[in-house]
Amino acid sequence: MRVPVVLAAVVFLTFTAGLLIAAEDPVMKEAQSTFVPIPLTPPPVKGVTATPALVELGKALYFDPRLSQSHNISCNTCHQIGLGGVDMLPTSIGHKWQHGARNSPTVLNSIFNIAQFWDGRAADLAAQAGGPIQNPVEMATTHQHAIEMLKGIPGYEKLFKAAFPSQTDPITIGNVEDAIAAFEATLITPNAPFDKFLRGDENALTSEQREGLQLFMSKGCSTCHSGINVGGQMYAPFGVVEKPGAELLPQNDKGRFDVTKTASDEYVFRVPPLRNVELTPPYFHSGKAWDLRQAVAVMGNSQLGEKLTDSEITKITAFLRSLTGDQPKVTYPILPPSDASTPPPEP
Amino acid sequence: MRVPVVLAAVVFLTFTAGLLIAAEDPVMKEAQSTFVPIPLTPPPVKGVTATPALVELGKALYFDPRLSQSHNISCNTCHQIGLGGVDMLPTSIGHKWQHGARNSPTVLNSIFNIAQFWDGRAADLAAQAGGPIQNPVEMATTHQHAIEMLKGIPGYEKLFKAAFPSQTDPITIGNVEDAIAAFEATLITPNAPFDKFLRGDENALTSEQREGLQLFMSKGCSTCHSGINVGGQMYAPFGVVEKPGAELLPQNDKGRFDVTKTASDEYVFRVPPLRNVELTPPYFHSGKAWDLRQAVAVMGNSQLGEKLTDSEITKITAFLRSLTGDQPKVTYPILPPSDASTPPPEP
Repeated sequence: MRVPVVLAAVVFLTFTAGLLIAAEDPVMKEAQSTFVPIPLTPPPVKGVTATPALVELGKALYFDPRLSQSHNISCNTCHQIGLGGVDMLPTSIGHKWQHGARNSPTVLNSIFNIAQFWDGRAADLAAQAGGPIQNPVEMATTHQHAIEMLKGIPGYEKLFKAAFPSQTDPITIGNVEDAIAAFEATLITPNAPFDKFLRGDENALTSEQREGLQLFMSKGCSTCHSGINVGGQMYAPFGVVEKPGAELLPQNDKGRFDVTKTASDEYVFRVPPLRNVELTPPYFHSGKAWDLRQAVAVMGNSQLGEKLTDSEITKITAFLRSLTGDQPKVTYPILPPSDASTPPPEP
Repeated sequence: MRVPVVLAAVVFLTFTAGLLIAAEDPVMKEAQSTFVPIPLTPPPVKGVTATPALVELGKALYFDPRLSQSHNISCNTCHQIGLGGVDMLPTSIGHKWQHGARNSPTVLNSIFNIAQFWDGRAADLAAQAGGPIQNPVEMATTHQHAIEMLKGIPGYEKLFKAAFPSQTDPITIGNVEDAIAAFEATLITPNAPFDKFLRGDENALTSEQREGLQLFMSKGCSTCHSGINVGGQMYAPFGVVEKPGAELLPQNDKGRFDVTKTASDEYVFRVPPLRNVELTPPYFHSGKAWDLRQAVAVMGNSQLGEKLTDSEITKITAFLRSLTGDQPKVTYPILPPSDASTPPPEP
């Protein structure tokens, strides 16, 4: 009878590791119909075959400050792997110490968002990756110069050839974007207590977190903050019921309106994903709230028209802390050196 | 006869891995009397017991931009692990985009230098680590504020307690410096072809590199560039024989004179270590030479009074490339998050 026992154990382990268990518990059942656990392995990236060589190239580019005009700012400057995928600043500091207009969104789990940037102006990670490189207040170069620069660093040719073996001239901005996207897609954070709960482990949440989850669903937070990223799946106005003050919602930033030029998109933003939210202060697109409790209270007022009690805020905040998953283990890439043929920085 | 054979093999491997073999080859013999291979494991740090917890804390601090006033600049900003331990800029960009006065020296193998900074004003790595934190053109905070900040990040207390288990109030600037030094001491780059040669492997250098090494010793380069770091062991004037032009040696930077106030120290600098030199352009304290060949030629003129031929420069440069060792494998540290109790950045 040895084999069937082993087989049953394998089936059971497969189930608990990767799949949802049909829940009896009504809170778990509602959660399972509203949210999706982060998978244990990176998802495929549309249009890209994420070979190890492509991911390695993407990682090198992600950490390479020479993609900026000054050679001083990399993707990791504003989306730091060790800081929840953000820079923990209200708004990022870019070329010549200019400040960006909005709080830097996290790169972690960004593959699961419906679109990228606070206003959703990039359809996917590859489209996003090219943006900051040529944004004058961020990395402040041009795609053309970035490519000249990469072609001027002798060691990159080998990395691009390995990542795009069928191409004769693979150092292109499209390939840069695809490689960065392929690396970013690996930056997922599975195994949060909430993921374990979604997969059927009733003991994964503390009782306070579980009550917070109940409130999160019953009060209506999960109407917008749903799906795999507990957000990041739709657009909503900041201030559905009541507009917050200008310190949190500056009047000159009309959000998605600037993309669509549609009046109903004024002050509309992509609903921020809440995965690892305890690691990503300060909050809101303005980056003005350092306190997660304050952010929860503001959301209650502005989005739900509800003044949450201290106890409710405590419980919801506890639930939000259950969204912190395993942080990525990234070995710092060794970048090919500049030499006399590399276009010098323009600081 | 099994045991003696195994024993002999063990003895042989121990020898070739860690010790020098007495050379017959005269070039190898001279090299072994002038240089020292990088050890295979990190050396001890004076006054510090480098436990894993201490090194982990030091790594977190090394990568934490919140040690700067703006929360935007970390040790790794100017001494990047993936860029040969430097930033590949002529001079670093610091607080509010100010430029430092001198080219950023590499952190790699810096534990082996006689003293730190171009002018040797810090006796060791711990003394160095505190400098940039409070330098107004670099991280631009104060030691006092840096400590308030670390105390305001809840997750750091546990890391400091683990690193300094016998202390009741371990978050101090002295401990910050010791922890960073303990991490930096792990950033060594063993197994360069030249190290293998020094350990007795006659085939470790190409014939061009070997000829370059011969020239490096016979022309007199190794009079200053000697020891374990092929430099970093003494001080010398830039321009022993002939002062280079102001584009390489700006007149307003008098080097070690500013530390000792001794007339003979005008334009004296710590001889730069040449380990991994191909990875650390641009060259000189002014960071004005991007071409390693140019740097070699300038050194010939200014330090030796000798116009090196193209062929000599090619060979010496080839030898210098044999100084590139195994680059550090560093897993990016996950830093504890800021929260409402953390002093906010002052950008």
